[in-house]
Amino acid sequence: MRRGLFIGRFQPFHLGHLKAVSYILEREDECIVGVGSAQYSHTVDNPFTAGERIEIIHRSLKNSGIELGRCFIIPIPDVGEHMLWVSRVISFCPAFQTVYSNNSLVRVLFEEVGFRVEPVPLFDRGRLMGTEIRKLIAQSGDWRSRLHPSAVEYLMSIECEKRLATLLKNDF
Amino acid sequence: MRRGLFIGRFQPFHLGHLKAVSYILEREDECIVGVGSAQYSHTVDNPFTAGERIEIIHRSLKNSGIELGRCFIIPIPDVGEHMLWVSRVISFCPAFQTVYSNNSLVRVLFEEVGFRVEPVPLFDRGRLMGTEIRKLIAQSGDWRSRLHPSAVEYLMSIECEKRLATLLKNDF
Amino acid sequence: MRRGLFIGRFQPFHLGHLKAVSYILEREDECIVGVGSAQYSHTVDNPFTAGERIEIIHRSLKNSGIELGRCFIIPIPDVGEHMLWVSRVISFCPAFQTVYSNNSLVRVLFEEVGFRVEPVPLFDRGRLMGTEIRKLIAQSGDWRSRLHPSAVEYLMSIECEKRLATLLKNDF
Amino acid sequence: MRRGLFIGRFQPFHLGHLKAVSYILEREDECIVGVGSAQYSHTVDNPFTAGERIEIIHRSLKNSGIELGRCFIIPIPDVGEHMLWVSRVISFCPAFQTVYSNNSLVRVLFEEVGFRVEPVPLFDRGRLMGTEIRKLIAQSGDWRSRLHPSAVEYLMSIECEKRLATLLKNDF
Amino acid sequence: MRRGLFIGRFQPFHLGHLKAVSYILEREDECIVGVGSAQYSHTVDNPFTAGERIEIIHRSLKNSGIELGRCFIIPIPDVGEHMLWVSRVISFCPAFQTVYSNNSLVRVLFEEVGFRVEPVPLFDRGRLMGTEIRKLIAQSGDWRSRLHPSAVEYLMSIECEKRLATLLKNDF
Amino acid sequence: MRRGLFIGRFQPFHLGHLKAVSYILEREDECIVGVGSAQYSHTVDNPFTAGERIEIIHRSLKNSGIELGRCFIIPIPDVGEHMLWVSRVISFCPAFQTVYSNNSLVRVLFEEVGFRVEPVPLFDRGRLMGTEIRKLIAQSGDWRSRLHPSAVEYLMSIECEKRLATLLKNDF
Repeated sequence: MRRGLFIGRFQPFHLGHLKAVSYILEREDECIVGVGSAQYSHTVDNPFTAGERIEIIHRSLKNSGIELGRCFIIPIPDVGEHMLWVSRVISFCPAFQTVYSNNSLVRVLFEEVGFRVEPVPLFDRGRLMGTEIRKLIAQSGDWRSRLHPSAVEYLMSIECEKRLATLLKNDF
Repeated sequence: MRRGLFIGRFQPFHLGHLKAVSYILEREDECIVGVGSAQYSHTVDNPFTAGERIEIIHRSLKNSGIELGRCFIIPIPDVGEHMLWVSRVISFCPAFQTVYSNNSLVRVLFEEVGFRVEPVPLFDRGRLMGTEIRKLIAQSGDWRSRLHPSAVEYLMSIECEKRLATLLKNDF
Repeated sequence: MRRGLFIGRFQPFHLGHLKAVSYILEREDECIVGVGSAQYSHTVDNPFTAGERIEIIHRSLKNSGIELGRCFIIPIPDVGEHMLWVSRVISFCPAFQTVYSNNSLVRVLFEEVGFRVEPVPLFDRGRLMGTEIRKLIAQSGDWRSRLHPSAVEYLMSIECEKRLATLLKNDF
Repeated sequence: MRRGLFIGRFQPFHLGHLKAVSYILEREDECIVGVGSAQYSHTVDNPFTAGERIEIIHRSLKNSGIELGRCFIIPIPDVGEHMLWVSRVISFCPAFQTVYSNNSLVRVLFEEVGFRVEPVPLFDRGRLMGTEIRKLIAQSGDWRSRLHPSAVEYLMSIECEKRLATLLKNDF
Repeated sequence: MRRGLFIGRFQPFHLGHLKAVSYILEREDECIVGVGSAQYSHTVDNPFTAGERIEIIHRSLKNSGIELGRCFIIPIPDVGEHMLWVSRVISFCPAFQTVYSNNSLVRVLFEEVGFRVEPVPLFDRGRLMGTEIRKLIAQSGDWRSRLHPSAVEYLMSIECEKRLATLLKNDF
Repeated sequence: MRRGLFIGRFQPFHLGHLKAVSYILEREDECIVGVGSAQYSHTVDNPFTAGERIEIIHRSLKNSGIELGRCFIIPIPDVGEHMLWVSRVISFCPAFQTVYSNNSLVRVLFEEVGFRVEPVPLFDRGRLMGTEIRKLIAQSGDWRSRLHPSAVEYLMSIECEKRLATLLKNDF
């Protein structure tokens, strides 16, 4: 059984992430989607709770015909100390052998303890970036074509545009 | 969409828990299996990591023919303050309306903020109790008939009997 | 301006505590009632939240004719490291010179950093002990004569007997 | 009994805050002054300890003729996770029904769990802003007319100008 | 350069520990003395601060003629999650290859990530046990012959007998 | 016995720090090198673990002929609350009377609880600054002449230039 870990914050999970899961499932038996910084929400950079992000990912995978029996969607709270973070990930996830990430810190930390780290192809990078998508949501802009329709439907149901607009103007 | 939360520590997930998931899925559209005290492992009462417990649950559900598309398996770390715990659960899980639990503290805490809490029927309570099963594993006793075969296979592969025997005799 | 700190968990604040505040106000200009272990609640030893304890203390003082302008009621969360606890207390309280406590650890910790620590007379110790009172509440026993009537009225309004009975039988 | 929660960091509590408490007491039976970010001090944005802020608030209220028996002054340490913060506030405060705040994040978080949130009129906003007042203290500028005289007297006694000037030039 | 880690709580460091360091230095180039549970003090089981324990160890080694240039004495605070603890140790210590410990949990945790774990010979186990020595200190009993004279001298200077007697009778 | 505490983050420990230790040892019997923010690593400002920093300091002192028997090298994790930090330092270090630091916050915090705080002469400040040296390492620039040769040798062995270059370009 070979497993790959796809780690990110998924704020929110968009079509690029969805293609990455397919890409990983072509190479591995199973894919773990690790939802990082799980404890944060209601900030400009981390607007959605772990539960909301999990629901978006679950719906996007399920409605794209990806076999959920081959996937794990797991929230992983940060530790605050980089040297402990890999152990936290190992503790919260089923055993995996390969990490898929384009983040250089993630690469350094996992390679230092002996994991193989592979890059993830960037799909339509111009349009599919978390920062950009969050800004578009806050402005009620053109974000809906960048997520799976079932994710859009869910996000509309929780009034995501209102929340992000509020967080943007907050100066707490 | 109606969802029920089945909350426990699942150290380990046994046939009683498995029947409870089926029971909940008869009453709800979807079932969230909330893996509590997720951050703990390697103690007599919490021998398995969240990742190991998730793997056991995932295998048990999948190999019993339960539809994974209707289930969420979510690790939930403790907060240490009972008044914050319900918010932690809400933060980590997709929205739910009903909590399934026989624990009186869980009942009090969720009812205080307005959730409906339902009991879970106890299946073969004489044989299916976490404390008892952990003791049997530590003693290489008769624990294998109390878990799903796919869970047993996995637990044997990680040498669970050795780990629990060691933890029991530890006096760190 | 001389101030005394009266430190305890006040689970709950009873007539002995009330007399102690009067005793301290005879010796000091102002009295700080420090509500320790503030973050805990819903356990057998710490059943009430900080907010509930503050309400009980506020009502008991106010309805006993004690001048609230000479009192501070301040929740103090534990730190988990004894060496940091005195600094936490200093950080959360207005400046004080004397600590009133019968607890030997409190005495050691405050004396080590140069505070004066005075004992508090025990009023009717046979009947006025937190442990005993909590047990009586859980059993719907004779606890009402041991608290100020306004505290009893409040505790009845939040159904304290039900909560404590539930916590006692909990085996979470 | 109707209670309103007035939540802020009060670094420091100025004449605008004082008027807000009067405003709230005209509408509610009692007012809780919740001192947020209670655990922080000795930074440019949070120069004063919770204890110092409580002392300033207590003196300002008492010497303005506000009835202390109708007020609670309660330090509330941050949790670090927005989803848990409302529960922390509920845990530390006597029961309240209405929250008074102009902060949009505070509004979102309390409204999500069903509280009523009311704005607070801004009194002399041009002169009464925490950021501005802290800068003036650090520069020994004209800050004294913006706080209650009893607060000024106290702040001078703890050499606030020296502390803020030092914090401003610190590059730790 | 080969290094061995000798891990313990050292409450307090006695002649058995001292012999163990010599034993390790015969087998390794350098020895790290890892002072575990570093953040605790003033409890019956952890009476001394990390700083006090470091001073005892430093004096015992120095006055026994052990070369300090070959030793590291390092406080290691607990993490609270066993799966993170080994990473915490690695983060706080210079690189090491072998762990010396008789504790079975320590063995399990380090072996799971690939370290070699060696037992430490027990010297005069009947007389040299932390629990026993702490009890003797609290009772002003015969503990002085079980520690290095320079450690005894230091412990007397901080009035250790008084502190332990107080902690024993504390019921905070 | 007079001891001075030299407190810093030592990211990394350079020739200016080394001279400071000599300077302190001329004035005190013993010197404690307190390695602050010990829990952080793998960030641009805190690239090295506590263990790596301790190894650099130990080698630099030892190979400069400084008597290790007169020195303590102690990692001190941050607390996150300035009012608790001095107690944390006291808890982790052997008793000391004087603090050596040029940082104004350190000065304020230690002076508030009665310690004497002395400045440290800056040796060749133009070339010997942590920020500057970290930048040079990341750029494979001229950093080697600014640390002790034994520290340079060690840092090369752990491929410090690669790590810092990676951290600089990281945008996690």
